[in-house]
Amino acid sequence: MNEPKTALRIALVSATLDLAFLRTALETAAPTAHISIYPEQGFDDAEVAVAWNPPHGVLASMPQLKLIHSIAAGLDNIFADPHLPDVPVCRIVDAGHAQGMAEYAIWSTLMFHREMDRHLQNAQQRRWERPEQIAAADYTVGILGFGAIGRTVGRSLKAMSYTVRGWTRLEKEEPGIEIYSGPEALPAFLSGCNLLICLLPLTAATRGILNADLFRRLPQGAAIVNMGRGEHLVEADLLAAIDHGHLRGAVLDVFAQEPLPDDSPLWDHPRIFLTPHIASMPNPKDVARQILANAELVSDGREPLHAGNRDSGY
Amino acid sequence: MNEPKTALRIALVSATLDLAFLRTALETAAPTAHISIYPEQGFDDAEVAVAWNPPHGVLASMPQLKLIHSIAAGLDNIFADPHLPDVPVCRIVDAGHAQGMAEYAIWSTLMFHREMDRHLQNAQQRRWERPEQIAAADYTVGILGFGAIGRTVGRSLKAMSYTVRGWTRLEKEEPGIEIYSGPEALPAFLSGCNLLICLLPLTAATRGILNADLFRRLPQGAAIVNMGRGEHLVEADLLAAIDHGHLRGAVLDVFAQEPLPDDSPLWDHPRIFLTPHIASMPNPKDVARQILANAELVSDGREPLHAGNRDSGY
Repeated sequence: MNEPKTALRIALVSATLDLAFLRTALETAAPTAHISIYPEQGFDDAEVAVAWNPPHGVLASMPQLKLIHSIAAGLDNIFADPHLPDVPVCRIVDAGHAQGMAEYAIWSTLMFHREMDRHLQNAQQRRWERPEQIAAADYTVGILGFGAIGRTVGRSLKAMSYTVRGWTRLEKEEPGIEIYSGPEALPAFLSGCNLLICLLPLTAATRGILNADLFRRLPQGAAIVNMGRGEHLVEADLLAAIDHGHLRGAVLDVFAQEPLPDDSPLWDHPRIFLTPHIASMPNPKDVARQILANAELVSDGREPLHAGNRDSGY
Repeated sequence: MNEPKTALRIALVSATLDLAFLRTALETAAPTAHISIYPEQGFDDAEVAVAWNPPHGVLASMPQLKLIHSIAAGLDNIFADPHLPDVPVCRIVDAGHAQGMAEYAIWSTLMFHREMDRHLQNAQQRRWERPEQIAAADYTVGILGFGAIGRTVGRSLKAMSYTVRGWTRLEKEEPGIEIYSGPEALPAFLSGCNLLICLLPLTAATRGILNADLFRRLPQGAAIVNMGRGEHLVEADLLAAIDHGHLRGAVLDVFAQEPLPDDSPLWDHPRIFLTPHIASMPNPKDVARQILANAELVSDGREPLHAGNRDSGY
């Protein structure tokens, strides 16, 4: 769609993911581009690196590099490279991706609001129990991290009549959603949440934010959904808060170590529902399209879209 | 709110439910009304019977009766009385109720569309597996029964970008939703459904409609959600269709016998998720308000709202 005029050289660089699926999508969208997967021969001539958990130092070994592009919304895994060269680092901002995140958030919200967690457990014990129902308007969902995805998730839940509030670093506005800004507003934000959904970027300031201190500020019986990064969550604190009865349960999509190790106590905890980082997988066609559009902007000497900031970390 | 001018006499009549919760709501809304619960003294003087599975013949023993009111959307359990007196029989039509049904339908749709069923099973086996995702627009939900609730459910799913089709006895229209009408259109309707949600009223024509013949007409891997009545489903046919691999699974909220018997094979089938008839419980305040409004209309000699038809059975 936005194929650059001169043959573009792209290298796919990851220590943890097989990016062959993306090579196919890029080749289809830009048949004249030269695409290599690190450490294939010629990768270090590339002008554009498409990266996910790149081995530290590899990007610095690419002298022609003009752009580093994440394959997703998160940049934490790229900024983690201590030898990162000084070129723009861009994220994927994809309407389909935000929609997938909203679907996951809705399913998780209904799981707790409609007590599906209780019904699934009751069925295993052949117990027929019909608790009273709470109207969606009387159920408050707090969204921790109110960027592009948080906004889409918040609007989707608001459309289902939930009471929605958001917490964010910077002042923001959204009709019908109360926004709390900055660390000093966090306790007030938390105190009214029946459900807390983490959609934060992973930065030095947010690492480990889902910990015992935060859980204590949530009302008794609140539930947690982590769709941010595994490193946001102190797993031992979550297990303690659930097992002591303060938290109702959790839906977790992300983990400090992925795949989740075999011996993790999260796998079969009766109050934890986990999924393998599938809240939303961007469509390879859409990802390829955005990478190529940004590559064209950069090769024209213009600013790419959706560049991250290495000071804030996202 | 709509309290009649003369003291109204209401009897609550059920063989299977304790309707004391509704007495409280009616007394609060109409403090001067005389309210009895069958077989309390004086029940047979009532002008309005509020009924749910009434013992057969009891309503015929009430000579002042002007109105029979269901406590929910379904009238099948009232029309089942062979001695039913010739007065209007009305249903509850409640926006909050339809919203609850939509929430349940959305959760169930996401369960299969987003393969949450697979992820929950995988977690029990500590398996990390990330299948490709299907866009909501590429997933077709068929709604069997397109009345007031079906329409609300259909619109909610359409708003989430699903492809939605409806099947109904009578010709209807709904923007963005393809409506199939009549028995001759049923096979074509079924052939494109990834998920089938039953929201039919229970009548002679719909009893047992979810059977082996219908399942065969669904595509391989389709899933079933039953939010209608237990008697719509031939349980043995569902179990066979799932166990033979033709159907993916089911979410069931209603059962031929409720509470579901202890020895039912549905309780712990790995591909069936069941809930105890909680898809939506109408709010007692709203139910009381509608009953009293209809009682006032009838005592003024006017037609009540939302009367059923005993020929069609709903």
